[in-house]
Amino acid sequence: MIKLSDFDTDAPKGTNEKEIRKKTKEIAKEIEDLQSIMYAQKKHSLLVVFQGMDSSGKDGATRETFKYCSPAGIRTKGYGKPTDEEFAHDFLWRVHPHAPKKGEVSVFIRSHYEDVLIQRVHKWIDEEHVTKRINAINAWEELLQFDNKTTVLKFYMHLSKERQHEKLMERIETPRKNHKHRDGDWEQRKHWDRYMECYEDVINRSSVPWIIAPVDQRWYRNYFIASKVLDALKSMDLEYPKIKTEREEWKKYV
Amino acid sequence: MIKLSDFDTDAPKGTNEKEIRKKTKEIAKEIEDLQSIMYAQKKHSLLVVFQGMDSSGKDGATRETFKYCSPAGIRTKGYGKPTDEEFAHDFLWRVHPHAPKKGEVSVFIRSHYEDVLIQRVHKWIDEEHVTKRINAINAWEELLQFDNKTTVLKFYMHLSKERQHEKLMERIETPRKNHKHRDGDWEQRKHWDRYMECYEDVINRSSVPWIIAPVDQRWYRNYFIASKVLDALKSMDLEYPKIKTEREEWKKYV
Repeated sequence: MIKLSDFDTDAPKGTNEKEIRKKTKEIAKEIEDLQSIMYAQKKHSLLVVFQGMDSSGKDGATRETFKYCSPAGIRTKGYGKPTDEEFAHDFLWRVHPHAPKKGEVSVFIRSHYEDVLIQRVHKWIDEEHVTKRINAINAWEELLQFDNKTTVLKFYMHLSKERQHEKLMERIETPRKNHKHRDGDWEQRKHWDRYMECYEDVINRSSVPWIIAPVDQRWYRNYFIASKVLDALKSMDLEYPKIKTEREEWKKYV
Repeated sequence: MIKLSDFDTDAPKGTNEKEIRKKTKEIAKEIEDLQSIMYAQKKHSLLVVFQGMDSSGKDGATRETFKYCSPAGIRTKGYGKPTDEEFAHDFLWRVHPHAPKKGEVSVFIRSHYEDVLIQRVHKWIDEEHVTKRINAINAWEELLQFDNKTTVLKFYMHLSKERQHEKLMERIETPRKNHKHRDGDWEQRKHWDRYMECYEDVINRSSVPWIIAPVDQRWYRNYFIASKVLDALKSMDLEYPKIKTEREEWKKYV
């Protein structure tokens, strides 16, 4: 049983920022090395899900983790308010097409979890419906794993309420960040405690485990997330595929 | 526990063909009436799955059941050998985008069940994998039902081995049917008994029940299937949506 209040949103005390930034860069390069092999091998795939409150750093983490990778092998997909077309289907209908192909990484910036979070907080669906959706999510994530060798890595971006306030204010006060401001973010912030309850419940009822990422400091967040992504890549049996015909064979085609 | 050998592939003895053909036509017209309402109301949706051996009449049943309906509300999707792109994803990835939208009918000519039939018969996947796929199918069909008010209607096209031989021979001997001939159909026919075992097992392990349709006679098949589709439409609470503003209101815009 996970309790979010047991987890720090801060970097561990005494962490050396300069050192961590250096390490993060090394890790991001290692990620590129392994992701290139995954892309060439076309056997494994990786789904990274970023879920968290507004300004918890989902975009930033995406950028920093894969900064050295070729976009050819990385797809990102953000999930906002469903379109009319999406609303006319089950909630996983808009998500499934973006599951990663063998060899690829898919990054979800927000995800299918919105349908058991914002919709639950505002009581747009009842509790029985929430349970059915959580079960459907579990079945779907298991499907990706057993049927397509997909590693599913889900990050809950653990941000403190105080830090959110600072970050939302930054968006208002810094001209080049103004474009990120949404009135609606302040509206959702009013429901902070209920969001925390719903996140906690979903995290506890997921069959594929969540990683609770401390995101109050951007530099530590980037390090933490990149490390977990690297671990996931290392645990796959990645190797470049070999040419099967002998070199001698090709010499004939002079 | 369903045993396929307990079910007739023939029309019931003494059935009057002429009468049945007349009734089928009436039913198909009623289907159009109700499907028009479903399309206008945009609340319910219907997924019809046709599964069966080669020449069991999946295309014919599709045509005859919906012959009076506007194609605007009916989508059909046939599933053949997966493409490279499809193979690089989980087996439901190619199917999910074709789940019906609210108000629409989707007809699957073959379906996601191929992945637990032909692949199992030829041992391309092991039994543990088959079980996981059947569970994933059950979860997916339940998702369509609870999250999108989709009625899932699955027909097993129950054909006798003798009748298949006649129908496959017709394709060879009738010039305008030659285009339907595939060498591969005769190849699959060699595995008839194993196919029957696999169909029977899948039917028994499905959470959404199957309808066993006797398809040896085309005329009876059409009647049987159309009746079941009509029943499904009748059990939805279909009604034309009403204009909410008063007629008086619009008179102002002379």
